Amino acid sequence: MSSIREVARLAGVSVATVSRTLKTPEVVSPATREKVHAAVEAAGYRPNLTAIQFRSQRTRNLVVLVPKIANTFFARVISGIQQAAQACHYGVLLCNTHGDEQIEAQYAQLVSSRQADGVIQLRAFDPFLEGASATLPMVNVCEVLDAPPCPTATLDNRAAAREMTEHLIACGHRRIAMIKGPRRSPLTRDRLLGYRDALAAAGIDFDESLLLPGDFTPPSGYAAAQRLLTLPVRPSAIFCESDEMAIGALQCLREAGIDVPGEMSLAGFDDIEFARFCAPPLTTIAQPAEAFGEAAVEMLIALIEQRPLEIEHRVLPHRLVVRESTASPVAQQGGSPLGVI
Amino acid sequence: MSSIREVARLAGVSVATVSRTLKTPEVVSPATREKVHAAVEAAGYRPNLTAIQFRSQRTRNLVVLVPKIANTFFARVISGIQQAAQACHYGVLLCNTHGDEQIEAQYAQLVSSRQADGVIQLRAFDPFLEGASATLPMVNVCEVLDAPPCPTATLDNRAAAREMTEHLIACGHRRIAMIKGPRRSPLTRDRLLGYRDALAAAGIDFDESLLLPGDFTPPSGYAAAQRLLTLPVRPSAIFCESDEMAIGALQCLREAGIDVPGEMSLAGFDDIEFARFCAPPLTTIAQPAEAFGEAAVEMLIALIEQRPLEIEHRVLPHRLVVRESTASPVAQQGGSPLGVI
Repeated sequence: MSSIREVARLAGVSVATVSRTLKTPEVVSPATREKVHAAVEAAGYRPNLTAIQFRSQRTRNLVVLVPKIANTFFARVISGIQQAAQACHYGVLLCNTHGDEQIEAQYAQLVSSRQADGVIQLRAFDPFLEGASATLPMVNVCEVLDAPPCPTATLDNRAAAREMTEHLIACGHRRIAMIKGPRRSPLTRDRLLGYRDALAAAGIDFDESLLLPGDFTPPSGYAAAQRLLTLPVRPSAIFCESDEMAIGALQCLREAGIDVPGEMSLAGFDDIEFARFCAPPLTTIAQPAEAFGEAAVEMLIALIEQRPLEIEHRVLPHRLVVRESTASPVAQQGGSPLGVI
Repeated sequence: MSSIREVARLAGVSVATVSRTLKTPEVVSPATREKVHAAVEAAGYRPNLTAIQFRSQRTRNLVVLVPKIANTFFARVISGIQQAAQACHYGVLLCNTHGDEQIEAQYAQLVSSRQADGVIQLRAFDPFLEGASATLPMVNVCEVLDAPPCPTATLDNRAAAREMTEHLIACGHRRIAMIKGPRRSPLTRDRLLGYRDALAAAGIDFDESLLLPGDFTPPSGYAAAQRLLTLPVRPSAIFCESDEMAIGALQCLREAGIDVPGEMSLAGFDDIEFARFCAPPLTTIAQPAEAFGEAAVEMLIALIEQRPLEIEHRVLPHRLVVRESTASPVAQQGGSPLGVI
């Protein structure tokens, strides 16, 4: 294996410059960086990176706290994180936390103990004990804290839910159920506000019996739809806070012989890949999942490298995607709702 | 922040034992490990782990090379990896490689350069240049190399495909199409062998025009089904090498007004969560995705810690799951296949 001296000779720079380029590439000009990297490759030089990290106190690893890696929405966010990190020569330490605060805190310790340079948290919880996050690099995206101690990127969830509810009202629905995410989540609270905004603007009374709990998974959507079918007066439309729950609800309606959208409209949230492969294809709110990942990495690396952020709290755009699962409530002819079957 | 001496005092052990427990927990007895960890917690001691790693030449990170993180099957494998690694106090460096050999080789360098202790490769490619893998810890799971330079865990893909084909033949199908994965994959080759085994055993001629290419994604399943519908004599059943492709094919058949399974049977492979939420629910081969992840971690940590492996090449069990998307070909009455519509 060749030496750092050989690399310096090939690159036409000093040994100190090679060392600096490998330890703290961000302080070296792009041209020098390119020369040194080419020479490293040509020489087949393998620096002992742990030794370098030890000296520079930089690991070039990012910790990502993910509530559930197998969730199709998070998979897309992670994909965005991975791509952006790779482009900046950072590795990703991915942690499947099951939304468990203790596990999250434990992984965040990786940063305090210098195995990683910063944390991307996808859930509204501060994993650093005793407010330590104020001094450690962290970014909170997707579901964000109310008083975040760090930069954030999220949707305007209130506006998005309002838009979907307005779409259903515009179709002619007045009895619109909502299958909710976990109660403690700020997402869920903000989307409820948006739903109520739209009802109020249309002069429709809010009916709490039309709110059903769920946990973003297909089985929870299935169970909630089952409960909605037992109501004395059924809704004519169901708005689910995730596509996965809508897919579960769709299965329940299918088994009950209820035509979507003929007898019941159904809408989701997220626009996962399977949404357009549903029968019928699902009306939903598209979230820019990969862009969340990219924004998180961009902001976190700026924090780590102590560069100023242009915007501390970003709001990424959502988009209402109308497909075939929502339509006007034809069964409501005569002014009476679907009623008991 | 308290010192290592304080931890030793609380645990009732020597400073050297605390240091050894933190550096190489696997050489310390479980009882000592527990005492030391409790004392570390009680003392609020934060060791500088990079310094420890530097001295012990162990990073306690595993690199995982994943062709596509957003794939629902891989998401479950990763979930299994993550859980098992966490239980053994290893971190996971997850790399989204897009199946690109150069990116895989680059990430594998993390091991050569001591940022990680070993590699889990989910694809049939040796990411170490010039046979270096013989000396570096690696495990190859799911899609495995023909002459693997390392321990492996996989399905008996040939037997699984034979079983599904036999199920379709037992339903009464003789004209069975197959939507394939990428041509170069050993998975695809082995499953083709199993498909042909079943045909040969039933005395059915192999017809190459019934094999369609795909890439495991829903859009490729959709496109392949479209092509099958243009054949002069259509198949009465389609066997897809992934549930995601089956979901795409199902959409195509639905749009063409073809009833599944009334006019066409459809089967998948993997048993992703959405398989049972399809309309109709999908017959498929269940793969033990999480168990692949757990087996990979178990074998890799044994390699890293230089413990002997009980079994070098594991074959995990598959299971035929018959749901509603496959049935007998009722439209074949009179002995003639579906024919041109």
